Amino acid sequence: MSNPRSVRLVEVGPRDGLQSEPVVAPVEVRAQLIEKLAAAGLEDIEVGSFVSERTLPQMAGTGQLMKRLDALRGVRLSALAPNLRGFQDAKAAGAPDVAVLTAASESFSRRNLNCSIDESLERVRAVVEAARAGGVSVRAYISCVLGCPYEGRVDVMRVAEIAGELHRIGCREISLGDTIGVGAPFAARAMVEKVARAAPIDRLAGHFHDTYGQALANIFACLEVGVGVFDCAIGGLGGCPFAPGASGNVATEDVVYMLRDSRFDTGVDLDGLRDAASFICDFLGRPPQSRVGRACAAKQVDAVAHSRHRHVEG
Amino acid sequence: MSNPRSVRLVEVGPRDGLQSEPVVAPVEVRAQLIEKLAAAGLEDIEVGSFVSERTLPQMAGTGQLMKRLDALRGVRLSALAPNLRGFQDAKAAGAPDVAVLTAASESFSRRNLNCSIDESLERVRAVVEAARAGGVSVRAYISCVLGCPYEGRVDVMRVAEIAGELHRIGCREISLGDTIGVGAPFAARAMVEKVARAAPIDRLAGHFHDTYGQALANIFACLEVGVGVFDCAIGGLGGCPFAPGASGNVATEDVVYMLRDSRFDTGVDLDGLRDAASFICDFLGRPPQSRVGRACAAKQVDAVAHSRHRHVEG
Repeated sequence: MSNPRSVRLVEVGPRDGLQSEPVVAPVEVRAQLIEKLAAAGLEDIEVGSFVSERTLPQMAGTGQLMKRLDALRGVRLSALAPNLRGFQDAKAAGAPDVAVLTAASESFSRRNLNCSIDESLERVRAVVEAARAGGVSVRAYISCVLGCPYEGRVDVMRVAEIAGELHRIGCREISLGDTIGVGAPFAARAMVEKVARAAPIDRLAGHFHDTYGQALANIFACLEVGVGVFDCAIGGLGGCPFAPGASGNVATEDVVYMLRDSRFDTGVDLDGLRDAASFICDFLGRPPQSRVGRACAAKQVDAVAHSRHRHVEG
Repeated sequence: MSNPRSVRLVEVGPRDGLQSEPVVAPVEVRAQLIEKLAAAGLEDIEVGSFVSERTLPQMAGTGQLMKRLDALRGVRLSALAPNLRGFQDAKAAGAPDVAVLTAASESFSRRNLNCSIDESLERVRAVVEAARAGGVSVRAYISCVLGCPYEGRVDVMRVAEIAGELHRIGCREISLGDTIGVGAPFAARAMVEKVARAAPIDRLAGHFHDTYGQALANIFACLEVGVGVFDCAIGGLGGCPFAPGASGNVATEDVVYMLRDSRFDTGVDLDGLRDAASFICDFLGRPPQSRVGRACAAKQVDAVAHSRHRHVEG
């Protein structure tokens, strides 16, 4: 396996990020965020989720949001549609692409999806069939590919089996999610190498949460073995809001910074991303979690404090 | 170039970390920190700096500290000795290994070392000659190998030239420092590949600050091309204390976590590191900057809050 030709980023902040934030952002704020992300140059944005408003008030009005964003040209807007009912709503809202969910851990599937892995694959199959009839493409997430909060270690062969099955079912892309961010790059690379025997590597995406600070290293390691699609979230949104150090998705800013000036340069504008991050983080009342954002903010303070910098030698 | 056979970590927290902290830790606190680091399994620790106490009160009493640590067996204790006077003090204190400084940027050298790069190499030569006579080995740091706060971009060929010169002078190891943490892994790898043409790769070490969150990815990338020695600092100590986001060295905990369960597993005990980090960060009155430390702390909060976790589907 070798490097991919280019890197495509899938911005999941408006969905995977905002769904975990304790503050509910109204449709208009979400729309403005997505417009800023598109203006910065992101071309693939997951905007929301078609699930019960009672369960996830953060994702209420996703249909309305999709319609509000109808004029956004050149951007693939997708939304989570975890079951047939969700898919019908997504289709009615004009979503050209939907995302479905399964997991590599039985306990996580039961707790998060309220069904077994096999049952979740049945749901995926139903959505893919309906989507095919409606000309909609389907992206699948596998959660917990590098570890599970309930079971600990996860069997990589099980991840490969599930990815192979999702490919056979007809999902256009399979996003391998280190949902709790415990994976390190050696394990991430080994996992991808195994999975790539069951599903074509150009159909795989890496989805790394940055809980233990490993996400960029994981992306770099996966790039090295041929993965060319990575999920990220503006400002590192998401994670468990009750746990101050439990981080969300890897921050889009940090990924764009890492790839900048390399042959995988995404062309996405860092200043535009910082603007988007400030906008949503100000609304949520939390500081951006991205390292790049914090470093840039600190630089301004640093300039003031610089005269007080001490020399190593007197 | 290929992977090194193993990874050796050089703990620089007690020197590169503490020298930048606004709170001055007394010798006894520094000694206890170093004992905890050694107990966790770190075998190569830079304990302090032989520089003017007036300039760097944080490093005062390094001679006393070295003597206090005399009983620490199986650990290589080193100290910074940036000139001949510093070297004489280090030797008097029984240091078996000293570290010297130069830079890849002329402006940084003048501001930080008060001399040109060429003059700094003369100082290094004088220290190496004296060290050789005294049976002491010398490690050299090159600052700003991936960027300079004053000049911006740094010429990689200049880094290679300086590394080649340090090798010819007789330095046993050359630590390539991304002092301001701006480098990303593609640039870091390209730099190492160039430098390795001028000095043997098994004499090179990577020294990455984590300002932009790139340090772990940089280490992974350098490992891939044969670097087997990396500097790190407990709790991510260091950085500019006046700039909240300007991070210090990559945290030892995060590096140990990344290498764990891989064939580069260092065997260093993560719980022992967390204990050392808590000890020194409590003293300094600042939270540990390591991602692993924050994630582990959050896990405890998380356990309490878990019953409030919402499902994706209702």
